[in-house]
Parts: sequence; structure tokens; C-alpha cells
Amino acid sequence: MANKNIKVGVIGASGYTGSDLIRLLLKHPNVHIQFVAANNSAGQHLNQVFPYLQGTNNLILEKWEDLNWDSVDVIFSCLPHGIFHDIFLQIPKGKLIIDLSADFRLANSDQYTEWYNFEHNSKEYLDKFVYGLTEINRELIKNTNFISCPGCYPTATLLGLHPLLTEDLITTDEIIIDAKSGVSGAGRSPKRELLFSEVSESIRPYNAMGHRHIPEIEQQIQNYSNNNARINFIPHLVPMNRGELVVSHLKLKKKIGNSDLRKVFDKFYQDETFVEILNDSKLPNTIDVRGTNNCHIAICPSRIKDSIVIMSSIDNLVKGSSGQAIQNMNLNLRLDEKVGLTNISLFP
Amino acid sequence: MANKNIKVGVIGASGYTGSDLIRLLLKHPNVHIQFVAANNSAGQHLNQVFPYLQGTNNLILEKWEDLNWDSVDVIFSCLPHGIFHDIFLQIPKGKLIIDLSADFRLANSDQYTEWYNFEHNSKEYLDKFVYGLTEINRELIKNTNFISCPGCYPTATLLGLHPLLTEDLITTDEIIIDAKSGVSGAGRSPKRELLFSEVSESIRPYNAMGHRHIPEIEQQIQNYSNNNARINFIPHLVPMNRGELVVSHLKLKKKIGNSDLRKVFDKFYQDETFVEILNDSKLPNTIDVRGTNNCHIAICPSRIKDSIVIMSSIDNLVKGSSGQAIQNMNLNLRLDEKVGLTNISLFP
Amino acid sequence: MANKNIKVGVIGASGYTGSDLIRLLLKHPNVHIQFVAANNSAGQHLNQVFPYLQGTNNLILEKWEDLNWDSVDVIFSCLPHGIFHDIFLQIPKGKLIIDLSADFRLANSDQYTEWYNFEHNSKEYLDKFVYGLTEINRELIKNTNFISCPGCYPTATLLGLHPLLTEDLITTDEIIIDAKSGVSGAGRSPKRELLFSEVSESIRPYNAMGHRHIPEIEQQIQNYSNNNARINFIPHLVPMNRGELVVSHLKLKKKIGNSDLRKVFDKFYQDETFVEILNDSKLPNTIDVRGTNNCHIAICPSRIKDSIVIMSSIDNLVKGSSGQAIQNMNLNLRLDEKVGLTNISLFP
Amino acid sequence: MANKNIKVGVIGASGYTGSDLIRLLLKHPNVHIQFVAANNSAGQHLNQVFPYLQGTNNLILEKWEDLNWDSVDVIFSCLPHGIFHDIFLQIPKGKLIIDLSADFRLANSDQYTEWYNFEHNSKEYLDKFVYGLTEINRELIKNTNFISCPGCYPTATLLGLHPLLTEDLITTDEIIIDAKSGVSGAGRSPKRELLFSEVSESIRPYNAMGHRHIPEIEQQIQNYSNNNARINFIPHLVPMNRGELVVSHLKLKKKIGNSDLRKVFDKFYQDETFVEILNDSKLPNTIDVRGTNNCHIAICPSRIKDSIVIMSSIDNLVKGSSGQAIQNMNLNLRLDEKVGLTNISLFP
Repeated sequence: MANKNIKVGVIGASGYTGSDLIRLLLKHPNVHIQFVAANNSAGQHLNQVFPYLQGTNNLILEKWEDLNWDSVDVIFSCLPHGIFHDIFLQIPKGKLIIDLSADFRLANSDQYTEWYNFEHNSKEYLDKFVYGLTEINRELIKNTNFISCPGCYPTATLLGLHPLLTEDLITTDEIIIDAKSGVSGAGRSPKRELLFSEVSESIRPYNAMGHRHIPEIEQQIQNYSNNNARINFIPHLVPMNRGELVVSHLKLKKKIGNSDLRKVFDKFYQDETFVEILNDSKLPNTIDVRGTNNCHIAICPSRIKDSIVIMSSIDNLVKGSSGQAIQNMNLNLRLDEKVGLTNISLFP
Repeated sequence: MANKNIKVGVIGASGYTGSDLIRLLLKHPNVHIQFVAANNSAGQHLNQVFPYLQGTNNLILEKWEDLNWDSVDVIFSCLPHGIFHDIFLQIPKGKLIIDLSADFRLANSDQYTEWYNFEHNSKEYLDKFVYGLTEINRELIKNTNFISCPGCYPTATLLGLHPLLTEDLITTDEIIIDAKSGVSGAGRSPKRELLFSEVSESIRPYNAMGHRHIPEIEQQIQNYSNNNARINFIPHLVPMNRGELVVSHLKLKKKIGNSDLRKVFDKFYQDETFVEILNDSKLPNTIDVRGTNNCHIAICPSRIKDSIVIMSSIDNLVKGSSGQAIQNMNLNLRLDEKVGLTNISLFP
Repeated sequence: MANKNIKVGVIGASGYTGSDLIRLLLKHPNVHIQFVAANNSAGQHLNQVFPYLQGTNNLILEKWEDLNWDSVDVIFSCLPHGIFHDIFLQIPKGKLIIDLSADFRLANSDQYTEWYNFEHNSKEYLDKFVYGLTEINRELIKNTNFISCPGCYPTATLLGLHPLLTEDLITTDEIIIDAKSGVSGAGRSPKRELLFSEVSESIRPYNAMGHRHIPEIEQQIQNYSNNNARINFIPHLVPMNRGELVVSHLKLKKKIGNSDLRKVFDKFYQDETFVEILNDSKLPNTIDVRGTNNCHIAICPSRIKDSIVIMSSIDNLVKGSSGQAIQNMNLNLRLDEKVGLTNISLFP
Repeated sequence: MANKNIKVGVIGASGYTGSDLIRLLLKHPNVHIQFVAANNSAGQHLNQVFPYLQGTNNLILEKWEDLNWDSVDVIFSCLPHGIFHDIFLQIPKGKLIIDLSADFRLANSDQYTEWYNFEHNSKEYLDKFVYGLTEINRELIKNTNFISCPGCYPTATLLGLHPLLTEDLITTDEIIIDAKSGVSGAGRSPKRELLFSEVSESIRPYNAMGHRHIPEIEQQIQNYSNNNARINFIPHLVPMNRGELVVSHLKLKKKIGNSDLRKVFDKFYQDETFVEILNDSKLPNTIDVRGTNNCHIAICPSRIKDSIVIMSSIDNLVKGSSGQAIQNMNLNLRLDEKVGLTNISLFP
């Protein structure tokens, strides 16, 4: 039995992101969950709020104001956006902080006013947080105490684009992204439009042109390519619980055959455990990555001249959130990156 | 009570298209269903094959070889592709024939070999069939005995594109179409990949780049615009029964503001009952057209320069198939186009 | 075109019951909808609240306090329980009032305190309301101005029991009822446990032993049989929108063969349009009655001595609510009972 | 890292039971999968048939005729019923054989003719196989080479009944069982009635009175109680992938209070890892055990005199099949019973 000597705390533990993180942490051989916090459910046992989380009888949800920050080595925040940027200031320095919200993803604090409708209270830390897209930012993630995990859509999108950006193969100001997500991505707060009867037997786009992941994706493309980025991002709500599929339509800067493109991806991800480039004939299916930290990518030839289609699928709650957070913790703490993240998908 | 003096026959009545057509015909005030045929279920009562079709005790499925073609005025064929092009030759001339399959949609018989893997046996009739996209081809549909109804994806796609093609507003050789369909579109034949346990809780693209609706859509764009057409068409299977959503990403040939675009659509469809241009802030939801012959269209501004996004939703089995077939019959027989097609969607 | 001379008003129009009633009323040839009310959405167009309700641009939701009761002949109340018993007192006498809530279903006002947690404010009217189980109470329904429509579970259950109660064939104090309902039965108010992500891919019993339809069912059995009634009623939430299936396990008072039982049901329901006794080998499937006012009943032999199993299925929102309400209106106003209620199920 | 020194083979590996067994075996620290067989898919890589099964590139499906039985210590058969009773005779003695089908569950070979429509070819082994309901038959399971795993419904049902049978608290000849199962229980063979479009948005009973698990459940009750057993067993198909809920309505032989009943269950299962008796107010939800080997049981008071309702939920593929099979292997090989079976449910 491994030594469970890493003490972690989770705040924002009553949502789907928080509970999925706890699901994975409970099986992580090196981790001991020291506290869980959720102000709206404070005082309840964790398994009252999530009956499926067995073996957690000893975990009682606390208010974050009552936490003993010094009792832990790592703090995961799974709060909705707009809260942690405030709380953050009260945490003693020296802890590894991993934020799963959007609060420290954008470099420009004005974008929080514009896209998220709040005034950022920790502006001076925006450039201290490392963008935790593990496969891309490994060195930075290893050498920081502040990790801001990517949004679910940006994760799937950027893993599909990075090999092409690295090789400067695509135009960055006319990227078309058609994305589909399961309903868990919309959170656990009761909203009419998320009721079973409203979602079942339908598909619909939402936030077309105005989704909050747009500035995040454009910022990352820009940082990486040094080119102006402009994306059309159309997300859809799919009647399923988990899973995310991103289809990106891209303009190639130069002619390149499909097998050469394939080589670019194979080389870029050759040492990666969690990214799989599907064989030519196979297309991604979200069910194949459900519950796992995996990302499946397919490269599709396009009928349109000098174009290419990249498809990528993840579990929005795992690689798109809780799993990538743990992957970042593992990396930062010099554990094997895979520890605690080798689940097999549950099918059917 | 209206006079039920139009005698119709339905062949291919044991699939979802056939049964949905019969559902609507049973409520059509002017129609009497004279025969229903389905060779694989011949001899069974229709309500044994479809228990939901009440009040059809007198309808027994026949083999098409046994039909008395002369007992009817109108013949609807709901057979899968590759069958009716053969049977067709045996039907006495003078009947109104409405084919819901792909067998007479493409002008070039070689495309049947290339895309559908069969040799066409009625090549000489390919140019006699009118493409039954009602809102676009009304005059032709009125004056023919041979109507070939569009595929479900082409219907939703082309209704969204036609106002722009008419005004020559878009480039036709780089149209990107991201489409999503409910499972009924894949038919009622038992296939492993359509089992509930394979489809539920997943979304996946299929036939990317090679879907059979590609040549149909490209042919129609070409005919209408006199320009070369080239589309990227990525269809997805969504875990729901009915509904189809098409999102088209288009390049504008000239600068045009959103409100002017809106006027183009409003004018084009001002007299149409079944096409609704949604108000700016609303996006289509397939549930809102479920079970109806309606098509909802939204015009979305794009973040990409000189681009526009058009979204359109239909019920794949109704406007995408059975409903449009009846609309064409109504039109051809000089009935009110709406007769029998004014259902309200079933929600939730 | 029929004369739309019956003026109706609907209060509580923003829930699933209200909207489904309006869906049916819009197609009723004799009805004109004069007003719709929903205090929480007052001022909005009905099709803002329910985009699927087309052709209702002129209907704006009002507050019930602002209604002109005298402008209508019939008032349908689709409010949740505990509200209409109060409002009721303010409606001028002489109108046909059809309440779809529980407020006037129980004879004993103490049961409202016990089961519904409210003090009844119109106790003196409890015995003036007729229990609107159409097939059973026709004469009473014809001759009253006050109709209280049954709950969805009681409707399905009692239609299955009544032929047996009439012939005094079953023991009434040990009736076991296992019931399953789609999620729309739980209403449109946002509640965490009704979110898509909480309901999908699960089945669970709820309110076992304490469901509010228990006193209603027991009261009706008692009234009809003059015997003490005692039921075990276990309802389940099923991941589907509409539909209700009730399986009743019954003790026979005397030996009776299956074909004789069948005769009892056939005779009891021989003139009924909406009740179908399935043939021996067929079992009910909720999809076959979805969207319709039909009730399917199956009689199953039991392996247990002197026992029988009765299964019945309805659409919880139609025969279980809105459809039966219209059926009662038709009956009371001496229209054909079927008018406006002959929809075919939407399948798939 | 544990020593993977137990060599196992799986035959019938192309169905849901087989793949779920492999999902668990791949994570079992002591197991090495030596071969997988499925005649209908022989020659394919396992992850071609199940793309979700990653890390199995080396596993190629074989024909059972080509297997080297001597290369393994344990053989799991996941074949459909009616096949393994034949193959079994060809396996060299001395291996631990764990059959997940029904072929060795019934003691009386005539019942195979009556209920399963095949003539049993290994009749002489029927009484050599131990019924692998782990919690009940531990001593027998430890001391045999032949384990026949219970069906999914019998597992959930019998775990709920055994404490009551042991204390002789219930009448055994009038047990009413209302059961609900996800669609994966019906297997992966393409059948029309299992298509997504046929199952979604519906609930229906099936095989009422004639389900093949009836003789199995009755046999076990009889063996254990020495009383004649007679059950009414009504299974339902629920639109979800996994999960099984059994509600049993029972007659008590003597008066016993609810808290005393609770004590009976608590005592009976006090040392069990996988069986949890829910607290009074909680009811089982299949999602809480999805993907796990757990069984949740609730004891509900009944409104009917001298009666009780027991509810139990499992994952039909895990505790109802693959998980219990591994639990039995662990027990037989003197491993910790829990090894490889401590998954947390995937929610949502």
C-alpha cells in the first residue's frame, strides 16, 4: 500500500467537478483528503450530498471560512467562477493551489469584466498562475505553486490544435469550432433549462458567439502562435451526462498530405499516455473516454481545398476538469503523471 | 367531414419513414389509405408492426408484387435506397409518384455507382423526377407526376442556404456543415451500433467526409448558384429519437450587416407557413419542431471576418421526410399545402 | 370549420400540465382560448415560455387577479396543489370549473392537512366537486359545474381496477401497486433531483408508502366497493419525459379463469374509445400511448394462487391530466367525448 | 506492484458481460489475462470490438476450439445460455471454472428443456456446480472447482430475501417481485426491440410470468427455506444502460417491528463489504451502484397488514454478473474478496 502522505483539501466540493475530483482522489494511492468544503451544504456528510461516494463517512463539508489551510499541502478549488479570486488572497503562501475555475485563466483582467461580469480582486496574480494544459505546459507546471486548469472546451480544442500551431500549419484567424457537451458541464445548480424534461430528446446550440471559453481559447492560440486568433465557437447541449466532442475546421497554410499530418500528431504526442491519435478510419466516440483522463483525436481529410478537420473527445469532468487537475498535481509533486488516473471507461 | 377521395398507397411501410408518413396520412382529411406494403412483414396487420398506429385494423401489409397499382391515385415509396428505381418501372404511368428514398435525387447516374453502390435501372427517368424541396421548387412540383423528396440533411441545409444563394451572397466552394441527427434517421433495421446501449450517453460523428447526402447537397447548390460547390459535411449521431440540427459556416461574398441578412431571409420566406426565422436572440432547439413539418432558422453573426453562421432545425422524419412528401402531394393536387400538417410539437 | 364558440381560460399555464392542455385546446375545433394565466410569468407571451407552442402570438400570460372571469364559459386550473382551493372562491358561480390539481379530489378536508400540509379554505365545496374519472363517473360529470380531475397515478390504477371492483372480484385491503412515471410528472419547477444529470441512467423509487395519490386511490376504491381499502403504492422515477405504467397485484375473491376475466374487462369497456384491453400476449408500452388520451390495459395470469396482475399505461400528461380534463369538458358540454382527443402517438 | 500470477481466460468475450469482466480483470492486481475468445469475432483485436478497452492491444479474440486450456488457471465463460454446457466437457479437469451463464444454475435438467429450450449435455455436472451467490454460499464456493454465477435478477432478489428466509420470517409461496433493468441486460446482439429508437422514452414490462430467472429464484428460495416457493416476477425494460432495481412485496409470518427487521438485516450483512443496508429514510437509486459490485438494500414498512417491502439495487453487469464472478474467484483462490472490486460509481 502506497503512503498516503499528500494532504489535500477540496473547496467547492458540492458540484459535479468537486465530486468527480473526490471520486478520483479517493483512489489516488498517495493522497489523503484532509478537508472538503462547500458553504451551501456545510455540516452535511459528503455522502449525504453524493450518496454514490461511499467510504467517505468521515468527510463532513465545512465552510471555507472555517478551514485550517495549514493542514494541507495541496488545495483544489472547484468553486464556480467569480469566487476563488477573492478567497485566494486568504490562503497562506507556500501551498500548491490548483484552481479548476476560470478565475486565473485569462491574463488580462479586463476580460473578466467583459466576459465574466466581475471585477477581479487578485489581478496581480493573473500572471503568476500557470495555464495547466499539462501536455503543453509541463515545465511551467512543474515549477509553480499556482496552477489554473483549462476549461473543458479549451482542453479538447487546444489538444487538437497544438501540433498544428507548433508547426505553424494553420491560419489562426478563421478557426471554426463546433462543440458538443453533456449536461454535467452546466453544473448542479437547479435551473429550468437543465431539467430532464427540457433536455431529453433534444439538441440545441447555446451561447453561440458568446461562450466564455472563447477568450480563453483565443488567448492560448495567440500566445502559442504569436498570431492574432479569431474563432467561431458554437457549443451544443447534448442529452447525455458526460462527454465532450470538439470538431475543428481549419485552413492549412501550406499543402500537406494526410499521412504527413498524421506524422505531425504522432510525433507531438508520442510520449503521451492520455492522448491517443485514432487510426485513419476511426472517429472519436465520447463513450470511449467516459470516466477517463484520455483524449482521443482524429485527423479527417476535408473536401474543401487546403483545409483539414480535427476531432477531439474527452470526458468534460475528467480530462476537462478533475483528472487534468490531478495530472497537474502529480506532475508538480514529481509523482508519475498517471497515478490515480488509469481508469477504464465504463461501457455501456 | 372532408371528402377522403384521394386514394394513396404506401410501399416500404415497415420502417420509421413509412410509419411516420402513415401517422400523418391517417389524419389527413382528404386521404384514404388504400394499401400499405412491406415485403419483409407481409401478411401482418400494420398495428402488429407498429402498435402505436391505432385505428388501422383494416390495413394489412402486402408484398409490392401483389399490389393493385390502379386502385390508387398517389404512390409513396418509403423503401430504403436501391430498391424503388427497380420497382418503379412496373408502375403504370399516370399515377403521382412520390419517392422518399434517394433513388431519383441525383441527376448523374454515375453518382449512384460511386456513392450508393448500385447500378441505376431507371436512368432515363432521373431527369424527369423533380427535386421536392417544396419551398424552392414549387412550380416544378406542381407540374409533374414524379417527385423525389430530398434527404433529411439536405432539406435542413438547403432551406438555410437558399436565401443566400438566391442573392449570390456566399462562396459555394468552402461551405462547412456540422449536422446532428436523432437515431431514427438511421432506420429500423437491427444493427449493433444502433442498440440503445451503444448510443445512449454518447455523441459521435459518423461518415465524416463520405455521407451520401454530400453529392445531393452539392448538386442542389450547383444547380441553383451555377457555381462549383464543395462542402465539408460532418454528421453526428445524437442520443435522441427525432430531430436534426444543421449548423452551416459560410463565407460572405460581400459585406452585409446582420439586419440586412435578416431582411433577406424574412423576404425569402415571408409567405411560408413551415419556415420560421427565429428572432435574433433565439437559437433553434430540435424539440420545438418535433413531430411537425416546421423548419426553424437562426442567423448568427460570426467572429470571423466576412462570415456568417446559419442554423436550421427540423424533425428528420417529418419535414425531412414524410411531412414534406405530403406537402408535395398537397401542392401537386392543388390542396392547401398545410392540410394534414398543422401538428403542434409534443413537448416535453 | 367548426364553430369555436366555447370560450375557455387556463390558469396555471406555465407548467407542463398547463402547456399540454393548451397544446390540445389549440387543436380543439370548438374551443377558443380566451385567456391564459401564470403569475410567475405574467406579461410574457405564451410562446416565450413555451417556444414549441406556435400560433399563440396573441396569448399573453396574465396574473389571475387581473382576469375577467366573465369572459369565459370554462375555467381550467392547472395550478399546483394548495392554491386553487383559495382562488376558487373568487370565481363567479355558473362557470364550468375543471380543476386538474388535487385540491378538490379528497372528500375529507383533514386529509389535506395530513397529506398535503395545507388547511383547506373551501371545505364546503369538497362534496360538490365530482371526481372526473370520465369512464366511471359519466353521469355525475354531465350534471355538475365542478369537476376535479384525478391524479395521473389514480387514473391509470383505477381504470385497471374498476371492472374488478364492479364485479366484487378482488380483495381491497391488500392491493399492491408498482408504478413508474416519466419525469414530466414532477413538474417544471427547477429542483436538483430533476436535473438531467441526476435522472439520466438511473431508476429509483420515491415517496414509497407516502405518496399523495395514496389517499385518493384508497378513497375511490372504498367509495366504489364499500370495502376498506389498503394499498401499497411504490412509485418510481423513470428517465423518460412522458408516460406512466401501473402494475397492480391483486388477490381474487373467487376462482375465475383468465378468459372470464378478459370478458369482464371487455364488457366493462366495450363502448369506450380511450380504453383498450390488449390481447393476451401483448403487454403495455408507454410509447404506444404517448401524446394520446388512451389507456392500455393488460390482464396477466399470476403464478401465485388466486391472484391476478393488471397492467395499465397512460400518458401522465394527457389521460393522466390535460386530456381527461378536455374529455370531461366535452362530456359536460354534450360534445362528442372524443373531439380534440384523437391524436396518434408520436413514435419513435 | 502485485504479482499478476493468476492466469485467466475468458470465453464469450464479445458481449457486454464479457467486456465488463475484462474491464475489471485488467485492473485486478493479481490477474493476467491469458486468452479471450469469441467465435463470431475471432481474429479481431479486442479493442476493435470494444474501442473503450484500452491497453489490450495484445489481446486477440480466438475461437474457443483453438484455445490452449492448459495455459490458464481460471476459465470464465460469458457465453449466452445453451452453449457452455457443451463446451464444458472439453475442458481438462482441475481448472477453476466460473460460468456466468444459466447453464449450470438449475439442479433439475428438465427445467432446461422447459424454460431454456435446450437439452442439457452435462446433466451429471449440474449438482457439482456451486451456486455462486457469494454472500450466501461462501463455504461451498471456497471448496469447488465449478462455480455457476447467479443471474442478475436472482442476485438482487435473493440478497434482499435471504435474511428473512434465514429467520423464517416470510411466506414463500406468494412473493411478488417487481423488477427493472437497464438495456445492457438484454445483450449485444442486434435486435429490433433493443434499438435506441424503440427503447428511448418508454418503459415496458416484458416476459411477465415467463422470465427464465423465475425457476432459478424459486429453486434458491426452496433450497434455503425448505418451503414451496411461488413468485410473481414482472421485469421491466428501462431506458438506461446499466442498473437493476428489485422491489419485493412480502408477507410476514409473524408480527415484527421495523427496527427489529432492520436488526435482522444488519446482523446478517454486518461483515459484508458489498451489501449496504440503507438508512430508513433512504431509498436505492441504481446510479449509486453503477459500475460497482455493491448491492443497496432498503427495508420499507408496508401499509398492508403483516407485510413488508424490500428494495435492492445492483449494477446488473457487475454484482449481477462480472463482479460477482471475480468475487467468487477471489474467494476460491483465498485472495481478499474485495481485490479488484473497489470501484466507485461513475456519477453523473
